Amino acid sequence: MHPVYAQMGTTIFEAMSARARETGAINLGQGFADDPGPPAVLEAAARALLGKSNQYPPMAGLAELREAVADHYCRHQALDLAADEVIVTSGATEALAATLLALISPGDEVILFQPLYDAYVPLVRRAGGVPRFVRLEPPHWKITREALAAAVTPRTRFLLLNNPLNPAATMASAAELAMLADFCVAHDLIAICDEVWEHVTFDGARHLPLIGFPGMRERSVKIGSAGKIFALTGFKVGWMCAAPPLARVLARAHQFLTFTTPPNLQWAVAEGLATQDAWVQDARHRFERGRDRLAAGLADAGLAVLPSVATYFLSVDLAASDIALDDVAFCERLIEAGVVAIPVSAFYAEAPVTGIVRFCFVKQDATLDAAIERIGAAR
Amino acid sequence: MHPVYAQMGTTIFEAMSARARETGAINLGQGFADDPGPPAVLEAAARALLGKSNQYPPMAGLAELREAVADHYCRHQALDLAADEVIVTSGATEALAATLLALISPGDEVILFQPLYDAYVPLVRRAGGVPRFVRLEPPHWKITREALAAAVTPRTRFLLLNNPLNPAATMASAAELAMLADFCVAHDLIAICDEVWEHVTFDGARHLPLIGFPGMRERSVKIGSAGKIFALTGFKVGWMCAAPPLARVLARAHQFLTFTTPPNLQWAVAEGLATQDAWVQDARHRFERGRDRLAAGLADAGLAVLPSVATYFLSVDLAASDIALDDVAFCERLIEAGVVAIPVSAFYAEAPVTGIVRFCFVKQDATLDAAIERIGAAR
Ligand SMILES: CSCCC(=O)C(=O)O
Ligand SMILES: CSCCC(=O)C(=O)O
Repeated sequence: MHPVYAQMGTTIFEAMSARARETGAINLGQGFADDPGPPAVLEAAARALLGKSNQYPPMAGLAELREAVADHYCRHQALDLAADEVIVTSGATEALAATLLALISPGDEVILFQPLYDAYVPLVRRAGGVPRFVRLEPPHWKITREALAAAVTPRTRFLLLNNPLNPAATMASAAELAMLADFCVAHDLIAICDEVWEHVTFDGARHLPLIGFPGMRERSVKIGSAGKIFALTGFKVGWMCAAPPLARVLARAHQFLTFTTPPNLQWAVAEGLATQDAWVQDARHRFERGRDRLAAGLADAGLAVLPSVATYFLSVDLAASDIALDDVAFCERLIEAGVVAIPVSAFYAEAPVTGIVRFCFVKQDATLDAAIERIGAAR
Repeated sequence: MHPVYAQMGTTIFEAMSARARETGAINLGQGFADDPGPPAVLEAAARALLGKSNQYPPMAGLAELREAVADHYCRHQALDLAADEVIVTSGATEALAATLLALISPGDEVILFQPLYDAYVPLVRRAGGVPRFVRLEPPHWKITREALAAAVTPRTRFLLLNNPLNPAATMASAAELAMLADFCVAHDLIAICDEVWEHVTFDGARHLPLIGFPGMRERSVKIGSAGKIFALTGFKVGWMCAAPPLARVLARAHQFLTFTTPPNLQWAVAEGLATQDAWVQDARHRFERGRDRLAAGLADAGLAVLPSVATYFLSVDLAASDIALDDVAFCERLIEAGVVAIPVSAFYAEAPVTGIVRFCFVKQDATLDAAIERIGAAR
């Protein structure tokens, strides 16, 4: 057994969803919507199953999807990507794994921001890399140049940024991104940009891709997810975008991880990217209303809710809510009360923030209302 | 860039399929059928898209599919597997990657048999392992205890076996498997059994799983593929089966490679495993007739065809056909004539066998006939 896997438990998202399945609790833990997703995308996927080839598609993805992704980013983020700079993967997690396995050489250091998706550290370590943590804290979760300067060394080669940031529900500002870009250029770092939440943004806020900042075009890998764009997390269609010299290496790693991604789902996502902008916009508003409903209900129940400008999540500050439990203990109490949430300490590899609990709000009103009542009773 | 990816090209299967797409040649290279697959499986997948959840399924796979896989191996291979010994993956390639990344520690040696699927060596190397090659040769491609004894050292921990063996189109006999099992036990090796071709067997021959041999139950990982069972290579639903202590570690690696596999395809495969035995049996006969048709046509054209008892492939021995070209050169000549095949030297990491060319025969009669004519004209 490789030592990275020796101590490891099950990812917090699966562990908490399993608790929900076992107990019947309302699952506001793992991030997925109970929205059915865009009918046109589901129908396109079903049509392709019955009418098109279900054999191996091209390894880097269907040409139609690679073009649709490039075109989508041109329209929405003013990026000038060519189709051959897009490699389709079996979800964004595969894109992360392929990128880290492809690019990291043993001993390379990778700047990681805590809180982080729990795949990052094991993947970096398994690839032979050394994490260099920058610790972000509530309520502002701000990235500063000082913190970056303290983390970087001559062996640092990569910076892995999740923006918008799960679970903080924040989005980096143009000024922060310009600072990050300048820092990457100054230290000759490649930025691995996990931007799966790019379209799940609220209050009119607009995501800016790091690859669009000066000096970043040739030194960024931009990772995206159709599952997040269309609220179909089971689709497992993602991609990684990078300039050709990087993209070629990423494809080599991808070809020996999953090789390809189901063609019917690729067709459906290509069609969705071309035709479902209005659905995405409507979903954003639906999710925003869910956020507001959950935030108001929790506030009424006396909980201190942190702001959420993006992602499927909002968080509660336990100390500020006069709850004298840490996040793990409070999550246990919530399960007894019939609600599953995620303790934010699970997003830290070291020195965890322990007073914050995350809730997923992309659920039907009735589900949110029932959860609010149970949470209010449990506090 | 990690050194494993520095020199690497594109996998031979993709490279040759790309040549077919570019030139319009008949593609008898990459292994996929032009059979539409079992309608009931496609319809189940479409129904699930429109009627069931398209959100994250459980990380290790839908309970229904894990049970269906266990039950399938009980009925067909007399194996006594529990559902929680089955981890669903996004294709067998992911199962291989997860297994190797999970189990190999730096410096561990892995016995590999050449010819081999071109993912094996890069995956073993990227995981930190050291390949120890056993070289098999046409026309019998026999594994001997002497060759194994010459490859093993005190640092050897794993043996990775593809059985039935692509591209040799052979299947290990009960005696060979008993010898392999005995060898694994004697040297305390874990067997990684890539058995994706287990159902694609001909002339009534029956595949025997290595995990079923004495001493192997606790020291084997059995890898299977729905894409191969149902001739739907684009489905990308595979699995790895192992006793609980191994399965737990494999799941940890899987959760950070793809995390999950599309639930609609999992439902469809579960239904297929429960109901489509007759389709699988019929397909076997269809493919057998394709094999016979291609073998007869090539023999009539003066080519020396090697036996094929399994897989989608048969091979031609160039020297025995009085063709004074190596496999790569002959494949180039074939592309000029309008047929894509695979040079078997691409299945060797060192000391390649260079006189064998592989053809895929799971195609419509008319396609095979046209290919035979072109190959006959080109020889
Ligand atoms: C891959 S499970 C994680 C889902 C998710 O994005 C979250 O809940 O944070
Ligand atoms: C993953 S592409 C390889 C397909 C195949 O099994 C073959 O052609 O040998």
